[in-house]
Amino acid sequence: MTQIHQMTSAALSTADLIAARRPGHALPRDLYCGEQAYRDDLDQIWYREWLFAGPSCELPKTGSYLTMQVGDYPVIVTRGADGRIRAFHNVCRHRGQRLCASANGTNPKLVCPYHQWTYDLDGKLLFARDMGAGFDPSKYSLKPVHCIDLKGMVFICLAQIPPAINELAGQLMRYAAPSGLADAKVAFSSTIIEKGNWKLVMENNRECYHCGGSHPSLCRTYSDDPLMTVMEGPNAASPEILAHWARCDAAGLPSRFVNAPDMQWRMARVPLMDDQESFTLSGKAAVARRMGEMPWNDAGSLMFYHFPSTWNHFLPDHAIVFRILPVSPMETQVTTNWLVHKDAVEGVDYDLETLTRVWLNTNDEDRQVVEENQAGILSPAYEPGPYSPSQEAGVIHLIDWYCGLMGSRLAQRMAAE
Amino acid sequence: MTQIHQMTSAALSTADLIAARRPGHALPRDLYCGEQAYRDDLDQIWYREWLFAGPSCELPKTGSYLTMQVGDYPVIVTRGADGRIRAFHNVCRHRGQRLCASANGTNPKLVCPYHQWTYDLDGKLLFARDMGAGFDPSKYSLKPVHCIDLKGMVFICLAQIPPAINELAGQLMRYAAPSGLADAKVAFSSTIIEKGNWKLVMENNRECYHCGGSHPSLCRTYSDDPLMTVMEGPNAASPEILAHWARCDAAGLPSRFVNAPDMQWRMARVPLMDDQESFTLSGKAAVARRMGEMPWNDAGSLMFYHFPSTWNHFLPDHAIVFRILPVSPMETQVTTNWLVHKDAVEGVDYDLETLTRVWLNTNDEDRQVVEENQAGILSPAYEPGPYSPSQEAGVIHLIDWYCGLMGSRLAQRMAAE
Amino acid sequence: MTQIHQMTSAALSTADLIAARRPGHALPRDLYCGEQAYRDDLDQIWYREWLFAGPSCELPKTGSYLTMQVGDYPVIVTRGADGRIRAFHNVCRHRGQRLCASANGTNPKLVCPYHQWTYDLDGKLLFARDMGAGFDPSKYSLKPVHCIDLKGMVFICLAQIPPAINELAGQLMRYAAPSGLADAKVAFSSTIIEKGNWKLVMENNRECYHCGGSHPSLCRTYSDDPLMTVMEGPNAASPEILAHWARCDAAGLPSRFVNAPDMQWRMARVPLMDDQESFTLSGKAAVARRMGEMPWNDAGSLMFYHFPSTWNHFLPDHAIVFRILPVSPMETQVTTNWLVHKDAVEGVDYDLETLTRVWLNTNDEDRQVVEENQAGILSPAYEPGPYSPSQEAGVIHLIDWYCGLMGSRLAQRMAAE
Ligand code: FES
Ligand code: FES
Ligand code: FES
Ligand SMILES: [Fe+3]
Ligand SMILES: [Fe+3]
Ligand SMILES: [Fe+3]
Repeated sequence: MTQIHQMTSAALSTADLIAARRPGHALPRDLYCGEQAYRDDLDQIWYREWLFAGPSCELPKTGSYLTMQVGDYPVIVTRGADGRIRAFHNVCRHRGQRLCASANGTNPKLVCPYHQWTYDLDGKLLFARDMGAGFDPSKYSLKPVHCIDLKGMVFICLAQIPPAINELAGQLMRYAAPSGLADAKVAFSSTIIEKGNWKLVMENNRECYHCGGSHPSLCRTYSDDPLMTVMEGPNAASPEILAHWARCDAAGLPSRFVNAPDMQWRMARVPLMDDQESFTLSGKAAVARRMGEMPWNDAGSLMFYHFPSTWNHFLPDHAIVFRILPVSPMETQVTTNWLVHKDAVEGVDYDLETLTRVWLNTNDEDRQVVEENQAGILSPAYEPGPYSPSQEAGVIHLIDWYCGLMGSRLAQRMAAE
Repeated sequence: MTQIHQMTSAALSTADLIAARRPGHALPRDLYCGEQAYRDDLDQIWYREWLFAGPSCELPKTGSYLTMQVGDYPVIVTRGADGRIRAFHNVCRHRGQRLCASANGTNPKLVCPYHQWTYDLDGKLLFARDMGAGFDPSKYSLKPVHCIDLKGMVFICLAQIPPAINELAGQLMRYAAPSGLADAKVAFSSTIIEKGNWKLVMENNRECYHCGGSHPSLCRTYSDDPLMTVMEGPNAASPEILAHWARCDAAGLPSRFVNAPDMQWRMARVPLMDDQESFTLSGKAAVARRMGEMPWNDAGSLMFYHFPSTWNHFLPDHAIVFRILPVSPMETQVTTNWLVHKDAVEGVDYDLETLTRVWLNTNDEDRQVVEENQAGILSPAYEPGPYSPSQEAGVIHLIDWYCGLMGSRLAQRMAAE
Repeated sequence: MTQIHQMTSAALSTADLIAARRPGHALPRDLYCGEQAYRDDLDQIWYREWLFAGPSCELPKTGSYLTMQVGDYPVIVTRGADGRIRAFHNVCRHRGQRLCASANGTNPKLVCPYHQWTYDLDGKLLFARDMGAGFDPSKYSLKPVHCIDLKGMVFICLAQIPPAINELAGQLMRYAAPSGLADAKVAFSSTIIEKGNWKLVMENNRECYHCGGSHPSLCRTYSDDPLMTVMEGPNAASPEILAHWARCDAAGLPSRFVNAPDMQWRMARVPLMDDQESFTLSGKAAVARRMGEMPWNDAGSLMFYHFPSTWNHFLPDHAIVFRILPVSPMETQVTTNWLVHKDAVEGVDYDLETLTRVWLNTNDEDRQVVEENQAGILSPAYEPGPYSPSQEAGVIHLIDWYCGLMGSRLAQRMAAE
């Protein structure tokens, strides 16, 4: 009898790992670290679910575009001459050039930088030089990606048949309408890479158990009381939230808790601490001009998350929209856009430093804890611990959603093989 | 029935991918990106074909050496006391030290930097300290690599039995003779890494469909008319080329189109645009002194390529020799040497900036399009498109040569297994 | 019959490679380069053997800690309120955060930076906020790692049942006692990464065949005569060593050769060249105050190595302790600590530049040869050459120890599978 040391190389499939996970506990190591789990996450989630691309005001005019890399897929999202926003695979139909390399820009047409094949903003190939007699340009349109604009929040989906989005669409358009996102502009944008698996980035966002220790500037205005954000139902909450909701109801401002049955998304409007106005160091509004039809400076934050790719705060004076994209098994890109009313003038109506300070700090603080979380989980001695039932209910929602979806899809894949 | 999304992980072998490719179209994704295709390219092509090492004038005297990394193999090429150029595995026979780390240098002997085992320039082990009584130095010569100097163009081959090179040797020595490469010197050398598969680097070189859009400085003197470079046969070409060839014939300057039956190599001398003299911004010669026995300043460019590793321009006043080496599936090293007559004096006969500007620009412009080409091809949505029959005939030659060679060698390997 | 080129991808297992190695010769390529060999080295050696963590004086007071990364395992070593040094997996029992990211520091308690779970210095979970009624903190102590302090030299072991250490412990405590390591302090610390497999780093240390060519400053005081360091037995050595031992015996200073039967470790005290005092450029002591109870300035160096992780020199005026840790198949971290008497004052009793110059140089020189060794061994043309029987006896000890241990453990693993 010889003692066999725990092997470091995983033999379990992603489906096995998910089946073996312990409810109410963090996931097993290889789901946060492994190449196989990463490929499975891409195939089953990132390539199949609706993903937040950006606010529509990031594409203010005809030919405005943004690009994003979803796993192996480069995607371009652009506004056509008809005002409609469309998404395409950012890949030339000739020899595969990436059409646009910048994160943002404006182009009257999509002209390939290699041999200048020229596509219309609706994806049609308009022009290809010297391709010979038999060449039929109509067969070489850009490949489309599903795209929908929900009152200023643009989502894409790489699947051939995307999942239903009507329930989310209805609620989000209703809740976000007063914030006037389509009439906003991007005041500032930041993109960082966090050296952690995308699920660790999202777990971090789904609880405020860490806020007191990590976020001194955010905690001036944002309560880390879990009762503020983890609600039992649309009508059950703390007295100050109930009061806030009553006030919102009276003003016709949607505010009560709505969510998907599987918790893939949720939204609700909650007050800031002590009736403060905005995520600033002073607690006062950062922007003199309110967004959309927001009635008060102290209307709090409309919080909206959608798994796997976004969380957001719509405040009366500005909105902060976040998009995450996986880069590798242990790297995640986080893009933050600060939106203000499109007529607000920098230096007059708002000061950029005041507007951005709290969440620039907060993002960097979250990056640090996520990276150390990844570093520890890499240990074969890591053993998934229990989530706090009160403080980490939102993380449990995330992990249950993830395991439920992955478990059923991987089972379908096996059945189909 | 459930919709199964396209899997991102390749299940096809290199042989399968090549068998499935569509003639006249770019290659399937995994041949440009995958680790397996890269290993197969190394095994079947880079470790078996003749590869350009450098111009012999890069090794001007006894003990001059250059090093190159061919896949996993470090190689050293050095000139012996007898004037002959030899190549060896750049690996000490003691504990495997790389003997020379620099790209270029001069050594009277090859002395291992670790324990000073000392080899003659012909590879023999001359001295090894304290190796004990039974040690027979004659068994520890450096391992040779095939090496041939074709009138100033040095080629190596890692195979035990290299492919025939006599036809190429005869033609290249004849065509290159007037350029006097062996009596040249290296005026400038540049090495860059392009983040693209070696085939994308070579495809890029084999067409000028992209020149108008990418190469403003090159296009001052180099015509992007495909009729200039894609010739139907040794005697069929545009009127200005036919006139140029007649003039060359009269002067005894080999100029007409010759090539390998499988298009692995080709050479021809073509005029620059508007009878200009050299690849400079002004179109005038960059070097006051002509190379070898070149009769005129406006003799045009002797263009010579050899798959997989080189393309070249031999102009009357200077020569530009290019060597590519694969670094990883998606990285390729490109080394460019600018050669001038060995007695030309910098600052007197030529100005380095004038000499190098056009191709330094051109290399960097090509790097950019190659890198964006790789970025787009990485998309699983990439679908190989058609090559332009007129503009990209040279790319079709490359891809047909590649698929033909790989297909037959992989079939041989399978048969032998 | 077709010629099949040597394949670059290894098909042999680590056990096969070890079985096929040629005694007295360097190891086959893939044992120095391959991912599989690296994982096997971790599993069979680094995760099972005692490893040097650091000198106990690196943890001078309650709450002092050092961290180290052993393959995938982050480990923290800390001194408790009871003065005892303990090691733990540096991983929070909640969601796996790495508890301490710095290489060194001091903490009254171990507080997780994520959600502030708080552990006592003995590993017990003292405090975890809001974990609900059923939560039993006693089940969430930090996971311990074996740890032993051998008179100032701290070793850890990740195995559940560590190998016997009593023989080493007895000898080391006896030999090191006069050097007073526990009453020393760290005067300087350096950590470098060498781009070479850990075995190449250790091979390099186990011979002085390379010293003459690589180490001009070390060779002023350290003899590269193999008779100085490769001893035949405790009583057989060169006349000057025998004389030195006799002098040490008379003073009660343990000095004669002791070693493990399998050569996993060895220690002996040898004189410096020409009775010099220390590894300085002048050969004079670098520190005015001698360590522990060292009787003379010219007592030479007590050399101690232990495979796989450490070599050391204990001199009368200072000690230099080295720790290596594998980082990847071809990267190794080397940490060097210079120790002096704890009451020695920088600027008064010693000058840091004088103290550290020789081994800072020597480490960097060794890094260079190790990196070129790795670069050459990567060649498929590399063929393991013979070790010098006289000059490289120490390397043969290392390689025989390695192959013996790996061979038997991999056979056990196969038997157990
Ligand atoms: S790759 Fe886009 S035009 Fe050629
Ligand atoms: S490795 Fe070259 S002499 Fe030792
Ligand atoms: S991970 Fe350590 S307290 Fe949460
Ligand atoms: Fe946070
Ligand atoms: Fe080009
Ligand atoms: Fe050394």
